[in-house]
Order: sequence, then structure tokens, then C-alpha cells
Amino acid sequence: MPIRILITGGTFDKEYDELTGRLFFKHTHVPEMLARGRCLLELTTETVMMIDSLELDDAGRQRIVTRARDCDETAVLITHGTDTMVRTAQALAGAGLGRKTVVLTGAMVPYAFGSSDGLFNLGSALSFVQVLPPGVYVAMNGQHFHWDAVRKNTASGCFEAI
Amino acid sequence: MPIRILITGGTFDKEYDELTGRLFFKHTHVPEMLARGRCLLELTTETVMMIDSLELDDAGRQRIVTRARDCDETAVLITHGTDTMVRTAQALAGAGLGRKTVVLTGAMVPYAFGSSDGLFNLGSALSFVQVLPPGVYVAMNGQHFHWDAVRKNTASGCFEAI
Amino acid sequence: MPIRILITGGTFDKEYDELTGRLFFKHTHVPEMLARGRCLLELTTETVMMIDSLELDDAGRQRIVTRARDCDETAVLITHGTDTMVRTAQALAGAGLGRKTVVLTGAMVPYAFGSSDGLFNLGSALSFVQVLPPGVYVAMNGQHFHWDAVRKNTASGCFEAI
Amino acid sequence: MPIRILITGGTFDKEYDELTGRLFFKHTHVPEMLARGRCLLELTTETVMMIDSLELDDAGRQRIVTRARDCDETAVLITHGTDTMVRTAQALAGAGLGRKTVVLTGAMVPYAFGSSDGLFNLGSALSFVQVLPPGVYVAMNGQHFHWDAVRKNTASGCFEAI
Repeated sequence: MPIRILITGGTFDKEYDELTGRLFFKHTHVPEMLARGRCLLELTTETVMMIDSLELDDAGRQRIVTRARDCDETAVLITHGTDTMVRTAQALAGAGLGRKTVVLTGAMVPYAFGSSDGLFNLGSALSFVQVLPPGVYVAMNGQHFHWDAVRKNTASGCFEAI
Repeated sequence: MPIRILITGGTFDKEYDELTGRLFFKHTHVPEMLARGRCLLELTTETVMMIDSLELDDAGRQRIVTRARDCDETAVLITHGTDTMVRTAQALAGAGLGRKTVVLTGAMVPYAFGSSDGLFNLGSALSFVQVLPPGVYVAMNGQHFHWDAVRKNTASGCFEAI
Repeated sequence: MPIRILITGGTFDKEYDELTGRLFFKHTHVPEMLARGRCLLELTTETVMMIDSLELDDAGRQRIVTRARDCDETAVLITHGTDTMVRTAQALAGAGLGRKTVVLTGAMVPYAFGSSDGLFNLGSALSFVQVLPPGVYVAMNGQHFHWDAVRKNTASGCFEAI
Repeated sequence: MPIRILITGGTFDKEYDELTGRLFFKHTHVPEMLARGRCLLELTTETVMMIDSLELDDAGRQRIVTRARDCDETAVLITHGTDTMVRTAQALAGAGLGRKTVVLTGAMVPYAFGSSDGLFNLGSALSFVQVLPPGVYVAMNGQHFHWDAVRKNTASGCFEAI
């Protein structure tokens, strides 16, 4: 089953700029992560943007929706910042993607920082996108949630059912 | 959904003995990996054995089958050495576990070595065990395989459908 | 030879706050780094402050000088942010520490981020402090510099002789 | 001061072969380690051999001595397995290298395994080789030892003065 991975940035792909001491985006780590997972799925990765999801506006969100709808694959994984992941899931659901299974995932710690949850989440989301029925889901904390039944608990940093 | 994780050792949990220069088993890394993945699933971990799967004999394999059958959970994840993972999957399938979903996973590189695929595989297997129908599966390389349709390609180190 | 390690924070000890996405100080990583280096020197570590060296004012700088002067050891290693490391070296030199050997070091990438230069620099600085004659030095990039003959090149992030 | 790094293998440079589950040598990690340490010393690295020091015979040991003697640099760092590091130090001392400063170092855990002491030891040894007077030394555990006053404690894995 061919899978499209749409990369949008988020903590997942942040790096440390040693000259400024700030976090920034350079290139995505997703291909490196897939190699490390010895992933043999039929995948196409596509960088839609590299952005902190707090800075994602409606136009940017629409670009993600458009790419998820227009790509050939029916299984779509989206890497996304956790802060507005649920909003993008809602926008995707509202767009009526038909029989596509769309799974959003992200990370609380950048992959480049060693102690990241990113590799776990990527493995988890790739599995969910293969076997869940059509719909829009968030995959975090080892769990999957329907787009309309999840929120990020900003105090704990975890996703929870509502 | 409560999940039982049966730990049997394998490359997943090997460590480097700096005095002898050999690999050995000390304790399992699975709880540390779950914490790193910020996993919030309802899990019970149980160490059945800590063994290189090449040294797993019939009696040992039977202990794994017994624990998978007798535990209360209907979702069972087993960490296992990759060399004989398929044989254990066959033994599990032959035991008639009824409506249980059993997923075996492992790693090509020890988790403790930094570049391991273990965290990816654990995230992947935990997702599969939540959503696949009853049966016995191997989850490796981002994929899932029915117990009777998979082999490890010893030249590449990858699992493939047969 | 007993060595005093004065910890002042700096990039060395920064961590990633996964709730806010910002860098912060929690506790020092120096003891963990010494353990990883299997360091068997006679050491006393002392946290003077945990601060970004850009925020270090004269009073704070004076506290570092005072601790370097007043501690019993004649070999003193100071971990310090790189941005104002040279200014603190100058303050130490101006304080007239007599026959003490004082070495300042730091890191361009936090130790917690995996790809850090911190462990290399710590090993380097600990060696220099054991064998250099009395004076105040900066140890970075594998080199050592007299306090009055070094600057940080802010474009490259490297220390160079002047 | 130009420094020659002679690479001979040892735990420092071992890697995990995921197909066989054994440790082996592929290429040296020293250049990667130097880059991570942002090392700006004037260095020439030379791979003399890639060997477990338990398998180093007299002819091999003589090749190391020859390269240390014949290279142009007066500062020579040798990466070496810890098991016979002291014997090679003795051979180097016996060869009469005149006014050269030779420092041997190694690691208890391979650099590739994440938790290695190698980066600390490399930083330490590079500093010692710049400032110690002519002679042959072992640099391990943050310390330096004269070639004739050190042994590896095989129970603890640490080097100690004799």
C-alpha cells in the first residue's frame, strides 16, 4: 500500500542553531528516521513546509489540506507541530477527503536531540495509517484519536480523548 | 484496551559489557523506551526471559506460548530476537489463542546503542496490536506480516512476505 | 591533584523544555559527563549558578571570581557560556589568583542534545588544568588560550588567538 | 603545533554488525569525533591498522612504533585498544623516540554506541599531547600516566598508577 508522508515541520524537525542558541528548521529528518527504522514501506515523502505549528495560518493550513486531498495515495501521514495539530486535523476532516486515511503525528522533543519521542511516534503513525479505516486521526502517546475526540493537554503535553 | 508486553530478550535488550567486550543481557529497556515514547497506553510488561533467540529451545518457546495464552489481555506484544521470531510466531499460531491479537517485534541493533531501530519497531508494533484482528503477526520494517507468510531474509536482515 | 569544578551554566547544561519549546536550566550534567568519561580524578563539583552567560552581570561574575579564589584547590575548572567566557577570564586574571591554574570551558551544543561538543571539551579542559602552569586559560576547540590572547569569533562560533 | 594521530582500532572504533550480531571494524570514527569536538588543532590522522589490541602481535606493534618514530610531528596521539595499551606504550618507550611526546588513549565503550567514553578520552589525550614534556604516556580516566607506572585493572576496567 503506497503511503504519502507530508512533512510540515513542527518540533519533530527542529534543530539547534549553535551560533544563535535558538531552534530552527534546516531540513527534515524523516528520511533519516525511516532509514533508522529499516522501514520498507512504499513511501513518498514531500515537504509541504517547515514551520512551527503556532505560526501556521489559514492559508498554510489550506495548503496541507490540498496536498492531502490531491495526492494519489489513500494513506497519508502528516508530520505536524503538536500545538495546532488538532486544528489541522479538523480542517482535514472538514475538507471531505473521501476514502482516505489521514494520520497526523509529531513529537514533543526534536529528533535531533537524542531523547526524542519522534521515532516511536513515526513507527506508530505509519502502522495506524496502514490499518485504520478512512478518516482523520491523531497518533500520539502510542494511541490514536479521531479528529473530533482529542485535545492536547497543554499542562502535561499529552494528547487525551474528549 | 489493556495490552500485555511479554519480554523475551533479543537484540532489542542487549547491552555492551565493557569489561569483556561482549554483548549480554542485564535488564530490559522496554519501560525506558515506553517512557521516551510518552506512551500512555494501559500496559503491563512482563519479562518472560532474557535470551538470544538463537538459544531458545522448545521448552522456552512453550513458556512464551503459555504466557501469551494465559494472560488476561487479548492484545499481546512480544519482544523477541529476530533470528527465530518466525518460529515462535508459528508456535503461537499452532497453540490456538482464540480471539487474541499477538504481535511479535524485535530490533536489528540494540536499543542501548543509539542507532537502534527498536523505538520505531516498538511504536509500530504497539499500534498494530491495537487495531489488527485476532491472529499472530510479525511487525518489522514498518510492516506487519501474518505468521505464515513471512521470513527473515538473512542476507539483508529484513523481513519479507512469502 | 585535587580539582575544583565550578559550574555556572552556559549552553553546556541547557535542556529542552518540551512544554514551552524553549531551552532552560534544570540541573547540571557535569557529574553524568564525568561518569561517562570514567573520570577518576579527585574532583569537587560546585554549582555557583545556572545561567546563560549573556545574562551574567558584574555581581554574578564577581561571585565566580570569589569562588575560584577562595576554594582550597589550586586547579580550578569553570564551565561557562561561550558568549562572555573571555570577559570572565579577564575578571579572573584581574583578581590576582596567585598560583592557581584556572581553565574555563563550555560547549556550542547542549550536552543533552546528543551531538554536543561538551564531553570533548570537558575531557580537554580537565587535562589542561592538571598540567598548565598557574594562570587563567580558555580551553575550546581542542586548544588552550591565555586569557588575554583569545576571542570568540561570533561568525564561526570558534575561539581564536588574537 | 602539528599533531599526528595514529589510529590502530580498539574498542574506540568498533561497530555492531546487525547481520551477525558481532562487533567489527569498518572505518575509524576519529574524524567524526574531531568534528563533533569542533577541534581546530593542526592534525594529520593516519590509520595504521584496525585491530582488537588482544590480536596485536609483535610485528603489528612494531609497525605502530615505526610510524610514531618516522612521522614528522613531535606530538603523536595513538588510539589503541585498552587491553594491551600498556605493552605498546612500553614498546614505544623502548624504541627511544627522542624528544617526541606520545600519548596513547582508547575507550571502554565503542564511540558508535552512544554512551562511550571515547569523546572525553580523545579531548583529554589531545590536550595532554600538547603540553606534556617528551615521553610516552597513557591517558585514560581523565588522568595521564607514564608508560612505566600504569596498568589496566582488569576487574574495574580502569587504569591505575603502579
